[in-house]
Amino acid sequence: MKIVLVGSGNVATAIALAFKAIEVEVAQIWSKQYQHALVLAKEVNAAAIKDLAEVDHTADFCIIAVKDDAILEIATQLKDFKGIVVHTSGAVNMEVFTSQMEEYGVLYPLQTFSKGRSIDFSIVPLCIEGNTSKTLKSISELANKLSSAVVEINSEKRKILHLAAVFACNFTNHLYALAAELLSANNLTFDLLKPLITETAAKVQGSALPQDVQTGPAIRNDRQTLQKQEALLAKEPQLLNLYQILSESIKKTQK
Amino acid sequence: MKIVLVGSGNVATAIALAFKAIEVEVAQIWSKQYQHALVLAKEVNAAAIKDLAEVDHTADFCIIAVKDDAILEIATQLKDFKGIVVHTSGAVNMEVFTSQMEEYGVLYPLQTFSKGRSIDFSIVPLCIEGNTSKTLKSISELANKLSSAVVEINSEKRKILHLAAVFACNFTNHLYALAAELLSANNLTFDLLKPLITETAAKVQGSALPQDVQTGPAIRNDRQTLQKQEALLAKEPQLLNLYQILSESIKKTQK
Repeated sequence: MKIVLVGSGNVATAIALAFKAIEVEVAQIWSKQYQHALVLAKEVNAAAIKDLAEVDHTADFCIIAVKDDAILEIATQLKDFKGIVVHTSGAVNMEVFTSQMEEYGVLYPLQTFSKGRSIDFSIVPLCIEGNTSKTLKSISELANKLSSAVVEINSEKRKILHLAAVFACNFTNHLYALAAELLSANNLTFDLLKPLITETAAKVQGSALPQDVQTGPAIRNDRQTLQKQEALLAKEPQLLNLYQILSESIKKTQK
Repeated sequence: MKIVLVGSGNVATAIALAFKAIEVEVAQIWSKQYQHALVLAKEVNAAAIKDLAEVDHTADFCIIAVKDDAILEIATQLKDFKGIVVHTSGAVNMEVFTSQMEEYGVLYPLQTFSKGRSIDFSIVPLCIEGNTSKTLKSISELANKLSSAVVEINSEKRKILHLAAVFACNFTNHLYALAAELLSANNLTFDLLKPLITETAAKVQGSALPQDVQTGPAIRNDRQTLQKQEALLAKEPQLLNLYQILSESIKKTQK
């Protein structure tokens, strides 16, 4: 099997390393920034290419892991590719490929990737889609080599999943950041919150749904504490606004 | 050493079990609901008492782990207690005890406790305070038996810590809940988000601050995706409002 990888960012890097870990060869890597392609290619023993015209059209897969708004343009340059082309985006329709090629689909890894952090790819949910059942089968076979959590999900549902991930990951990390700033402004170390953050995430890994393990002053409707905490934020209108909106939102989930 | 525990809720239960694990005897347990005191007392080989008047006044510590607004009333009933009285609240001043007793303080475990989940208490940050240096020393000795993360923090800073914990734990869990509802409304399982939630929490356990590992459309200022996701929430005004406020808040952290 021969794979071409387009991109050298966090997702492309994670995928390249995941293939290396299972000893599947990535033949070529292209990136808008050739230097980045070179670095990644060296790490996984692939060939960096300078021009998309150099893509080996006989490869089995071309995986496009680039910014959402760059996918279409790259696809137009891969019209002669004979294998299956997939993108890795949560938010872009599979139909972005419709007029460009015959066999195409999506391979969306539902995880947050940062350079320098190694991820156990074998448990990353891979959301796949294919334009024909034959294509889907091939994408499924590829995905199952990488992960044991492969799910077939159409473009509409994938967008919902991506949106839910923004709430559960990006917004969550921002709440960590706001907490860290509050602490730092009061000469307290963020280290104090780390066990709490770990346990909060661990609590929802089992069968309990997050709404069933909600704690804190808002769900108890502990008005005294809510008022005291609002008073602490009197000089931080932005934080106060968030505090009130999130507390109200929690109260509404109370049964 | 003799310890009296007041309360039988999540925090009281976690503390009782933590003492049991290190083989420190809890002598008595009182709870507003005697049945609950009985259950917990049985679990840790303590004696359940029906009336606060039965508290052994010669005990070394009385730990009050009850709802914030019940602390003062309980303290007034423990005026004759000769040992050190501490409460476990993040939000209540140490001075709640001022007119009631001679030796008092705070032992605030910064963690989210739920019945049925066992917690490694040895890494739970214990924030302590004492009304005299002698009292503080005794509380510190007790706290160090339970955890290796004991920190001395005054009431003002403890309130900030508690507020930061609301952002990093209670609000975070609510974001998980909103994500779970979004998925459920679209026949998608919350299981798909679990590895992402774990990794998001794990990413900030090292030296990286959350603001430095922020990902997602808002920090990239990816307007197309932001607009598409807002459109997906068009029929959910509450979620849309949260989405916009949190995205704006993230954008402001961009350097």
